[in-house]
Amino acid sequence: MNNIDNLAINALRVVSTSMISKAKSGHPGICLGSAPILHTLFTRHLLIDSSMANWPNRDRFVLSAGHGSAILYTLLHLSGFDISVSDLKQFRQKDAKTAGHPEYGHTPGVEVTTGPLGQGLATAVGMAISGKYFSAKFNKSDYELFNYNTYVLCGDGDLQEGLAMEACSLAGHLALDNLIVLYDSNDIQLDGPTSNACDDNIKMKFEAMNWDYLRVDDGFDVKAIDEAINKAKENKKPTIIEVKTIIGYGTSLAGTSSIHGKPLNDEQLASLKDNLDYHYDNFTIPNEVYELYKKAVIVRGKEARLAYEEKLSSYAKKYNDDYLLLKQILNKKIDIPSDLPTFTNQISTRKVAGSIITKMAEANQAIMAGSADLVNSTMIKGVDGNFSKDNYQGRNICYGVREHAMASICNGLTLSNLLGVGAGFFVFSDYMKDSIREAALMSIPSLFIFSHDSVCVGEDGPTHQPVEQLAGLRAMPNLNVVRPADAKEMTYAIIAALKGNNYPTVIVSSRQDVPVLTETNEDFNKGAYIVYEPQKLDYILLSCGTELSLCLKVAKELNKQNIGVRVVSMPSMFIFNQQSEEYKNNILPNRAKTLAVELGASMPWYRYASKVLGVDEFGKSMPLSEIYPYFGFTLDNITTILKSM
Amino acid sequence: MNNIDNLAINALRVVSTSMISKAKSGHPGICLGSAPILHTLFTRHLLIDSSMANWPNRDRFVLSAGHGSAILYTLLHLSGFDISVSDLKQFRQKDAKTAGHPEYGHTPGVEVTTGPLGQGLATAVGMAISGKYFSAKFNKSDYELFNYNTYVLCGDGDLQEGLAMEACSLAGHLALDNLIVLYDSNDIQLDGPTSNACDDNIKMKFEAMNWDYLRVDDGFDVKAIDEAINKAKENKKPTIIEVKTIIGYGTSLAGTSSIHGKPLNDEQLASLKDNLDYHYDNFTIPNEVYELYKKAVIVRGKEARLAYEEKLSSYAKKYNDDYLLLKQILNKKIDIPSDLPTFTNQISTRKVAGSIITKMAEANQAIMAGSADLVNSTMIKGVDGNFSKDNYQGRNICYGVREHAMASICNGLTLSNLLGVGAGFFVFSDYMKDSIREAALMSIPSLFIFSHDSVCVGEDGPTHQPVEQLAGLRAMPNLNVVRPADAKEMTYAIIAALKGNNYPTVIVSSRQDVPVLTETNEDFNKGAYIVYEPQKLDYILLSCGTELSLCLKVAKELNKQNIGVRVVSMPSMFIFNQQSEEYKNNILPNRAKTLAVELGASMPWYRYASKVLGVDEFGKSMPLSEIYPYFGFTLDNITTILKSM
Repeated sequence: MNNIDNLAINALRVVSTSMISKAKSGHPGICLGSAPILHTLFTRHLLIDSSMANWPNRDRFVLSAGHGSAILYTLLHLSGFDISVSDLKQFRQKDAKTAGHPEYGHTPGVEVTTGPLGQGLATAVGMAISGKYFSAKFNKSDYELFNYNTYVLCGDGDLQEGLAMEACSLAGHLALDNLIVLYDSNDIQLDGPTSNACDDNIKMKFEAMNWDYLRVDDGFDVKAIDEAINKAKENKKPTIIEVKTIIGYGTSLAGTSSIHGKPLNDEQLASLKDNLDYHYDNFTIPNEVYELYKKAVIVRGKEARLAYEEKLSSYAKKYNDDYLLLKQILNKKIDIPSDLPTFTNQISTRKVAGSIITKMAEANQAIMAGSADLVNSTMIKGVDGNFSKDNYQGRNICYGVREHAMASICNGLTLSNLLGVGAGFFVFSDYMKDSIREAALMSIPSLFIFSHDSVCVGEDGPTHQPVEQLAGLRAMPNLNVVRPADAKEMTYAIIAALKGNNYPTVIVSSRQDVPVLTETNEDFNKGAYIVYEPQKLDYILLSCGTELSLCLKVAKELNKQNIGVRVVSMPSMFIFNQQSEEYKNNILPNRAKTLAVELGASMPWYRYASKVLGVDEFGKSMPLSEIYPYFGFTLDNITTILKSM
Repeated sequence: MNNIDNLAINALRVVSTSMISKAKSGHPGICLGSAPILHTLFTRHLLIDSSMANWPNRDRFVLSAGHGSAILYTLLHLSGFDISVSDLKQFRQKDAKTAGHPEYGHTPGVEVTTGPLGQGLATAVGMAISGKYFSAKFNKSDYELFNYNTYVLCGDGDLQEGLAMEACSLAGHLALDNLIVLYDSNDIQLDGPTSNACDDNIKMKFEAMNWDYLRVDDGFDVKAIDEAINKAKENKKPTIIEVKTIIGYGTSLAGTSSIHGKPLNDEQLASLKDNLDYHYDNFTIPNEVYELYKKAVIVRGKEARLAYEEKLSSYAKKYNDDYLLLKQILNKKIDIPSDLPTFTNQISTRKVAGSIITKMAEANQAIMAGSADLVNSTMIKGVDGNFSKDNYQGRNICYGVREHAMASICNGLTLSNLLGVGAGFFVFSDYMKDSIREAALMSIPSLFIFSHDSVCVGEDGPTHQPVEQLAGLRAMPNLNVVRPADAKEMTYAIIAALKGNNYPTVIVSSRQDVPVLTETNEDFNKGAYIVYEPQKLDYILLSCGTELSLCLKVAKELNKQNIGVRVVSMPSMFIFNQQSEEYKNNILPNRAKTLAVELGASMPWYRYASKVLGVDEFGKSMPLSEIYPYFGFTLDNITTILKSM
């Protein structure tokens, strides 16, 4: 290794462990072990430009082992991003740019929020899919506009996650040769030697999933790492490069799990610097290193970006239609076709969702949809054929029975200039919970459409009948959970979700047919609105989804008895909670006289209603016709409850 | 194939598809394709006894592809379980034994609730672990008391699930040679050919995970299937037998995804019977078939069970201590040691949980604990060393970073006469949600202990800080979510959870130290109780976990100002909701004057309180000391809110 590489690697090691020591919190082990890998990647391969961080053909780097945040921030600092030495010193402090784990949207240069293992790798698969799509769609024989690679650094823990295995299996199937995983293989995990928990043959496992596998025996050998990455770039499959490293290199705890998450004390830090022969202050990086990164990362990246832009402007002349389409996608402008289908006869909201998504996808080439092996049940399918190694322009992804990876991949698509739409049975949102949370954390508009929204799933029984899922997702910050009541509300819901919000949306649809209500309207977009107003106001029925029509029936029936019942449709608590106090009080003026009605756990409704007719037990296997009476969702029962209030 | 096997296989096919047609709901494809596999397994291998279904050394059969329930019920009917032809005719009807997917505890002979793919296979790994444990613990050179096998039928979909991959990786690592997976490989899944979504090399993938792989090219060849199972029984690793079958065999839709989940109409059913040369009524099974199953399943199984019991009674004389210990485990009797540690100084509840679990595990050989690579953080570790191929008596499982599989394996342990205890960070309960739900559906006492219960995780930031997890899990039916306030409440919580309830328990523990409160006491077991009562009652503070001590401070401070504040500790909403109306009204008499205080989503508390001081946003990376003030969890702020009520 030449001296300057060595010096740079040691600077990365010392600064990042110093950050951790100063914060008295963080993970030195990975920073010390993986520094040569990341140094090689950043200075020899990664094409990024800190002066235009979101340049569409930049390479993506995903730190799937998010606990290595300190070294990532140090690298971003050296790479010209707006992260100063003061920021590095503020590691893990309140409001610092340098948060505990990398946070997308919070720190410049961070491509994905990572930390929960497996997430980064799975999200990266979505970024690689997006890369293949843009290449296939826009490259010409004389214009290679898109050719970015997605690089991932992962550890042993990442590869034990089922989420990662799902994503890797799909990546191999799709032959995503623009995906390169650098596997920081140090044989140690939190609880001790990896061999205590796992002895998978990683080479064989990845080759079985249609990956190429490369190995670098000496994780300090910059040249060997460089060569392996070069080789990986030439491969026609995704590549995993297993790089053997030593966790906590340079400390007395090297090669043990004790160094994983424990900051070095002053003495250990001094000893580390001695061992590394690093004679600078803890946060001082020698000028040669800055110079190296300036040349090898900042200037190299900027030149690549400028070359892309030059290419793009001549492309704009030669292929103007393509150029305009590309611009539209990159500007995240969504067209709403004037001929969206409308519905008058009763119809399940899943069918409506399917029709609207198809139409929207036809009109908007950014929409990449797919389902976890449930197209015919969810009715959600992308257009232009299946995305596959033979058709990278296809905009329907056959995710297979890989719900968790689907959700993370949707996030990766959405992070890479597309709009990821994933679909499944609502009960299986349980498999995807953490990935939906990632979207909410990142404030990105991934869209998840779940059919079979309640115990009305019927015969398939309780394993397939959601009950508590609405509550669990509605409790999540920054997630819009929408349960439309009919075809109109479903249409509004999808349009609203695709508008490029700074939050993800979950839309749940019904399996069974529901009437198209005359009462629903665009006030839907306020989260809750009055759909039936009596002459005098005795009670309020608050509902959503398939139960809204029942509530309307009750109100109309009681009106004949001179009992005044307002009916409020509340498709989204998230949106309603953002309305003015005045609006909220106008809609729901009297909690004591409000009864909420939903075929799901009662919990979310007590904020608005004093009584709730919900489902606080698991469902049962039985035909649809028996379900409403079994759970007391009848005109008579609702009337009785109302009159008792 | 001999005639009687052929006849029996066709009977299974016709009856199960007739059930589906009658119900107008269900999945004929798998029943028609997998009948020869299941017939071979039941008549040649599976040792079960319908007259004593829970005989501890019975073989376990897990239908991981739970949508094949109709054929399972038909097999159980033939195998002497209390499922009549009338029950078969009631398939998927209200209150029928023959529910849409197999439900443990609902239908005799069903070992695991299945349906969500991957679950059955992962749960089976827990059953196999239990088998190895009982063998190692109780077998003697002259007494092989335990030698049961766990058989799984799975499909393509199961093997795409990350959950299954996690579990299989661990099963290979642990060399669970008592686990045999029959892979119904028909190249078709719901959305079409499997090749649309996956082309993993299954042989290579499983061999990479330290499994043996066998293949049966002709899935109708009973002899070949039989031989493969025999071979698998002799292996020293878990075995997957890929059996090539034809989905929907015997129908015009054979080999296509259209037959997966669509009932046959009368004509198709008649044509099927013609094709199979089956000349009986739809629900009529010829006597020869009953006779075959009587001999090959019922009698063979009963003999094996009686032989086991005979062996056991002579074992009881020769190895009386072991026998008594075994009885204690099988009777699910839990000892509470008299010398459980107690705590006086402030201490984190995770440390308390660790100490108590260790002590309980030392005293109770049924407790099999483990953590998803977070022993040192959760503090939860089983005893007697790590469970491994070199030490099957170890009662600590190193799950690796496989949270989802951990939860399902805990269920498998709990279903097989052990008590599965799994631990992780609370935020990662998101990865395990569906498996926790399985435990709740099955009404089994799996115990999940999660540390790092709130935004007080601090520096690790929002990816590691739970917010909405308490709400989501509290909304789940039949799950006891407990958030203890101090060392005493944690001790009560663990004892209560291990008592053999008909529900699982989630206990969340704090990362940070909390005082041991003089006010907490055994009324904990009522779910909520008064810990501080003022002279006059102006307000109620309702809280739990680490916020309880803050609420006590507020109440005591306000008492000095002659403002009377009752403090209620509510460690479990689930338990509290089961108390008498009188008790509940005594504890929480005035919702309007009740303020709930918890460092988590506010949603769950509105049922009991009119105002909630909660956390309805994601957390931030910052040190612990800044978190309470940041979120307004201070004496001043709580006082201000109270006074505004």
